[in-house]
Amino acid sequence: MKPSTDSNKLVSIVGAGLVGAGWAIAFARAGFTVRIFDADPRISEQAIPWAAEQLQELKKHGLLEESPRDVSARLTRVATLEEAISGVSYVQESVLERTDVKRQLMEAINHIADEKVIIGSSSSGIPASAFAHDLRISPRVLIAHPVNPPYLVPVVELVPSPQTSAETVECVDSLMTGIGQSVVHVRKEIEGFVLNRLQAALLREAWALHRDGIATCEDIDKTVRDGLGWRWSFMGPFETIDLNAPGGVADYANRLGPLYYSIMQSRTEDGPWDPQLISQVESDRRQHLAVDDLAKRRDWRDQRLMEFAARRIKRQ
Amino acid sequence: MKPSTDSNKLVSIVGAGLVGAGWAIAFARAGFTVRIFDADPRISEQAIPWAAEQLQELKKHGLLEESPRDVSARLTRVATLEEAISGVSYVQESVLERTDVKRQLMEAINHIADEKVIIGSSSSGIPASAFAHDLRISPRVLIAHPVNPPYLVPVVELVPSPQTSAETVECVDSLMTGIGQSVVHVRKEIEGFVLNRLQAALLREAWALHRDGIATCEDIDKTVRDGLGWRWSFMGPFETIDLNAPGGVADYANRLGPLYYSIMQSRTEDGPWDPQLISQVESDRRQHLAVDDLAKRRDWRDQRLMEFAARRIKRQ
Repeated sequence: MKPSTDSNKLVSIVGAGLVGAGWAIAFARAGFTVRIFDADPRISEQAIPWAAEQLQELKKHGLLEESPRDVSARLTRVATLEEAISGVSYVQESVLERTDVKRQLMEAINHIADEKVIIGSSSSGIPASAFAHDLRISPRVLIAHPVNPPYLVPVVELVPSPQTSAETVECVDSLMTGIGQSVVHVRKEIEGFVLNRLQAALLREAWALHRDGIATCEDIDKTVRDGLGWRWSFMGPFETIDLNAPGGVADYANRLGPLYYSIMQSRTEDGPWDPQLISQVESDRRQHLAVDDLAKRRDWRDQRLMEFAARRIKRQ
Repeated sequence: MKPSTDSNKLVSIVGAGLVGAGWAIAFARAGFTVRIFDADPRISEQAIPWAAEQLQELKKHGLLEESPRDVSARLTRVATLEEAISGVSYVQESVLERTDVKRQLMEAINHIADEKVIIGSSSSGIPASAFAHDLRISPRVLIAHPVNPPYLVPVVELVPSPQTSAETVECVDSLMTGIGQSVVHVRKEIEGFVLNRLQAALLREAWALHRDGIATCEDIDKTVRDGLGWRWSFMGPFETIDLNAPGGVADYANRLGPLYYSIMQSRTEDGPWDPQLISQVESDRRQHLAVDDLAKRRDWRDQRLMEFAARRIKRQ
């Protein structure tokens, strides 16, 4: 992505933990000047040095055209919410995933923001109508839910509340597409949006298969990482089945719909994951990866995601 | 994979459609001599020329050490089931996915097979107990369910029936691991095994989200191919969540279990995919890919799978 020289390219990050700082990288890399604010100064202090490290890694993997230093130079820490919001066109909020915390922030922004600012929320499950309703800014608030880290994994779910204007959705679509994200439109508010609903459905079955002694965690993981996950990682589930029957998806549904229906009929009456099941799964996982090795494995994962991202960009 | 010079490496493919011919490639590439039989001689006639073409592609992608011709030379078409079975240690059956057809084949094999032959079935949903019960060979029959094509996507689900011996499972595990497949043990018979159950769970949610106007097929596909699918394609769902909370999978389950439970509670009373919904999804997909372009897109998919497989092998 080439940096822009447009001086109006100014956004603000509110909430500078992992998600917020990740967004800061995604915007700065695309040429935006980024103000970073967190109510806890210890958190915002760490954000820019952390981002600088990630930018080095991105450079190594061919994911950055400019020098990491030039990109870092577009990140500025600010001390107050007023400074963060003043004069910016877009705010990405990534504060704690709690309705009261997000509502409080929206009220504060409502108090100080001008007529034009648009606010995207990184909320991964709480819909905007739960915390951004009935404010002057309500038409300009929507969910912009990323996968972490947003500078590597491109998907972003845009979820308007009933009070969000169509213009706001359009505007954030352009902004996100412009910085290289892959925009998914969630057309109605629904718990978990699309991404976590799909994940919930697959996880529910995975946990139940483990609980019932059908397969180990490792074997369930293998089924996905050495099988199902390959096509999904470049086509998604609908295109996968569309190509899996001679006549396309309707042909596929007519052939295999009854089997899938029967499978799902047989999975009923699942309770929540109870402590015993959780401890079974924990113990199964710990046989493959010690708690002390989690951090190292996360680094490995991030390296793999960078390779993945690098291949995507080459292909485009 | 290096070819073996062991002259006992002899297997038989019964049912030589796409799946059977795909298995023939997987075995021949690993140094096995492969006999190919189909009750319909027009099908078995096509199998070897088709395999030869695929072997050329594999060579191009660095997925074949030998020359395609040398590997092809290990494929032999035979005219009768007797010829196919006689003296081989392993039979991979990939006949039509119908209980009566598979039962008939098992009875025929039971009649002619020696004391040692082991039979793996490519059945993607019918368990072995439905068609291989109460025969002399029953202890030596199990499901060995691949993803198509098995010479690219490594996963294979081994599903014993209650009559299958532990020795058989162990033996097929070694055989499959030896030719480079990734073995998943499904410890009890269950409809759809593990792979199609996980797929069914995700597809059910995907179809319902489309039906309810939450997102288009394309946006649901994007959510997976530009988001969820990345981690799943190299880690699987359990390792993904294990790394997504500071303390590992139990920590994750305690934080997010209630959300997932609530999401799945909200998805009840789903009927089968009805004709109207099927035609909606078909029409949505056809806006992105015309029926006439399905074949070309399948070639594209297979190229991508080859690149995927090539990267996996390099990494190992």
